[in-house]
Amino acid sequence: MDLHELIISLAEKNNNKIIMLVSDGIGGLPLTPGGKTELETAETPNLDALAKIGVQGLSTPILPGITPGSGPGHLGLFGYDPLRFIIGRGALEAAGIGFACGPKDVALRCNFCTVDADGKIADRRAGRIPTEESAEVVKLLRAVKIPGIEIFVEPVKEHRFVVVFRGDGLGGNVADTDPQITGVLPLDPVAQDEESKKTAEIAKEFFSQAKKILANQPKANCLTMRGFAKRPTLPSYEELYGLKAAAIAVYPMYKGLASLVGMEVVGKPATLQEEVDLLEKIYSDYDFFFLHFKYTDSRGEDGDFDAKVKMIEELDKVMPRIAALKPACLVVTGDHSTPAKMASHSFHPVPTLIVSDLARTDATNAYGESQASLGGLGHFEAKYIMPLAMAHAGRLGKFGA
Amino acid sequence: MDLHELIISLAEKNNNKIIMLVSDGIGGLPLTPGGKTELETAETPNLDALAKIGVQGLSTPILPGITPGSGPGHLGLFGYDPLRFIIGRGALEAAGIGFACGPKDVALRCNFCTVDADGKIADRRAGRIPTEESAEVVKLLRAVKIPGIEIFVEPVKEHRFVVVFRGDGLGGNVADTDPQITGVLPLDPVAQDEESKKTAEIAKEFFSQAKKILANQPKANCLTMRGFAKRPTLPSYEELYGLKAAAIAVYPMYKGLASLVGMEVVGKPATLQEEVDLLEKIYSDYDFFFLHFKYTDSRGEDGDFDAKVKMIEELDKVMPRIAALKPACLVVTGDHSTPAKMASHSFHPVPTLIVSDLARTDATNAYGESQASLGGLGHFEAKYIMPLAMAHAGRLGKFGA
Repeated sequence: MDLHELIISLAEKNNNKIIMLVSDGIGGLPLTPGGKTELETAETPNLDALAKIGVQGLSTPILPGITPGSGPGHLGLFGYDPLRFIIGRGALEAAGIGFACGPKDVALRCNFCTVDADGKIADRRAGRIPTEESAEVVKLLRAVKIPGIEIFVEPVKEHRFVVVFRGDGLGGNVADTDPQITGVLPLDPVAQDEESKKTAEIAKEFFSQAKKILANQPKANCLTMRGFAKRPTLPSYEELYGLKAAAIAVYPMYKGLASLVGMEVVGKPATLQEEVDLLEKIYSDYDFFFLHFKYTDSRGEDGDFDAKVKMIEELDKVMPRIAALKPACLVVTGDHSTPAKMASHSFHPVPTLIVSDLARTDATNAYGESQASLGGLGHFEAKYIMPLAMAHAGRLGKFGA
Repeated sequence: MDLHELIISLAEKNNNKIIMLVSDGIGGLPLTPGGKTELETAETPNLDALAKIGVQGLSTPILPGITPGSGPGHLGLFGYDPLRFIIGRGALEAAGIGFACGPKDVALRCNFCTVDADGKIADRRAGRIPTEESAEVVKLLRAVKIPGIEIFVEPVKEHRFVVVFRGDGLGGNVADTDPQITGVLPLDPVAQDEESKKTAEIAKEFFSQAKKILANQPKANCLTMRGFAKRPTLPSYEELYGLKAAAIAVYPMYKGLASLVGMEVVGKPATLQEEVDLLEKIYSDYDFFFLHFKYTDSRGEDGDFDAKVKMIEELDKVMPRIAALKPACLVVTGDHSTPAKMASHSFHPVPTLIVSDLARTDATNAYGESQASLGGLGHFEAKYIMPLAMAHAGRLGKFGA
C-alpha cells in the first residue's frame, strides 16, 4: 500500500479546515558561519508566538541535497512524491502562465525564430523580440485550424509562447523540433511512441499553417517546438484527501500548479493584504486553503538579505489575521530555501510549523531554521506535510483495528 | 525516478573539490550510562573548530538497528544503497586483498582442507595452516591451466585464499562445495542458473587439477570453494557524479572497495601522515578524495577504549592540514560505529560533519555523538551523504523548473 492509497483509505470528511501558508523560498543561510539566517534575523513576534503553541520541524523538499524548482517543490508540499509525479516542461510552462491543462491536452513550449530564404534558422530566438511585440504575433497564430482539435496559443515572454492541443488520443511523447543550432532547418516533430503519432501529425500541420501566417514577419517568421507534455496524472485534492481546496496566489505559476491538483483558483489578488482579504472572504466555502507568498523567494533570488528579512516581517504582520480564522490546522512552510547568500533556490531543508489543537508542542519558541532543527516534527520529507496537516486537522482515521 | 537517475541528471562538472575523510568505526558508546563516548572523551580541538563552522548530523549506515560490514558500510558512504547493491562474498574477499574484479571476473573464496585416503574431508581448515606456509602452497596452484580462461590465485590468511576466473560468459551463481561437515567428500560445484554452467565446469576442472597438484601436501591436500560472485554492477563515480575520484588508504580492503566504484587507488601510504602527504601531493589532480583512517576501528575491535581515544586524537592532529586545502566540501564521517565496549562493529549511527561555505551552521560546537544528534543535518541514511556533499560543493543543479 503506497502513501496515496493509505491516505485515500483513511481520509474523513468533516468541517475542520486547513490553511497552508507557503512562503516561497523562506529558508535561508547565515551570511557568516554561526550567524543568523534571514528568518532568524527578521522580527517575527507573531510567527514566534505561533511557534510557542505549535510544533515545528525541518522538511526536505525532495531528498537530502536536492534543490527543487517550483514545480517539484510545490508537488511535494501538496503531498505528491515529486520523484514519482513529474511535470513535463510544456505542462509546467502552461501552468506558469496559469493555463490549467486538462486530461486531453498536450502542451508545448514554442520559440519564435528567424529563418532565412531557404528556411534555415538564422536566429533561434527571433532577436529576442520584445514581449509586447511577440504577444501580437502570437494572436495571429490563433487562426490555425485543425479539424477535431482545439488549439490554444498563449504568449509567455519575449520569443517564448505556449501551444496546447486538446483532443482525443493525443500522446505527449514527441521530439523537440529545435535543432539547437543555426544554419539548419527546424526538425520535424517525430513521435517517440505509438500513442504520440497523432500528436506529431498535428504538430506538423500546426507548423505548416503557422509558417505561412508568419511568412511576412520581420523577425518572428518561424517557430520551434519543445517539451511536448501531457499534464501528469495526479489524483485531485478531492479524490486524495476529500478536501474542497482553494488556491490564493498572485503569480500565475502557483495558480497553475494548484489547478493541476484540482484546487479552485480564487480571485485575482495583487498583494499579500488582498490575499488575506480573499482568504477571510471565502473562508466558509472551502476545506483547504493554499496561500502563496512570493516575495521571500524573489528577494532571496535577488541576493538581497535585508530585503528578504523585510518581506518576512511583512508576512509576520498578517499572521494574526490568518490565525484569527482558527483553522483546525495551520501550516507555515516553504517550497524550498532561497538563501540570499546563494541568490538561488537551494537544497537546504525548510522550517515548517504546524499550529493545531492536536499539536504536541515542543520546546521551541521562535520560528526559524535552528529552532525547527530541534523541533518536535523532526526532519522529514515534504511529501509528509499533507498527511501531518490532515492528521492535525482530525481528518485522518485509524489504520487497521 | 530513483536517486541515482536523479543524481546523474543533476550532476555538474566544475572545479569544486570534495574530501571525504572516513574514520573507520569512529562512532562509539560510553562505558557507563550517561558517560562519554570515545569521540567525546578525546581531545579534539581541531575537529571541534570545524564543527563550529560546519553542520553535523547522525548518519545511519544501512537502516536503524542494522550493523554493517565494511563492504555495505562503504557502499553506503559512496552513495550506493547497500540493500540494493550487494557485493558477493567472493568479490568482497577479492576486494579485501586489493584485487579489483573486472566485468568478466568471477571471484571465489577457497579454503585449503585436509582429506583422507578416500578423499573425504578430515579437517575443513587444513589445521589452520599458517599464513606463510599457505602462501607457498597457493603459488603452486598457479600452475592450473584452463584454455580461454585467465586464472588468478591469491593468498589471504591461514587456510583462506582467493581464486578469480576471468573469461567470457561466466555467470556468478554456483553453489558452494564446502559440505560444512567432515567425513564426506567435497561437493561438486553446481550451477544455480543457465548463465553459470560454464563457470561450474571451469570450477570442476580447476578442482581436478588442483587436487593433483596438492596431493602430496601434508595438510593442505585439497580445497573447497565458496561464495562464487561477480562484482556488483555499480555505476562509477565518473558516471554517477561526474567526479574524478582518488582513494587514499593503507589497507587493501578499502582500496578494493574504492576501485569497485571506479576510484583511482593512489600510492602506497603506510601511515596517516603519509596519507595526508599524498592528499596534498595529488590535490590538484582529482575532484574527489576518499581518505580512509583504519585505526579507530581497529582499537574499537580490540575493545580498548583508551587506545581508540588516542587514535581519534591522532586523527585530530592532521585536521588542520586537511582543512588548509580548503575543499568546497569536507565530510568527516565513518562507515559504522565500533564501540570499544562491544569490541565489534555496531548499528549505532555515525556522527557526520560537513564543512562548506554553503553549510547552514547549527548550534553544535564539538564533533561527537551527542552533539551530532542535535545537529542541523538531522538523522539520515548514509546513502545521502554523497548527494549532500555534492550539493554543498555546488555540483548539483536544480531538479525541475
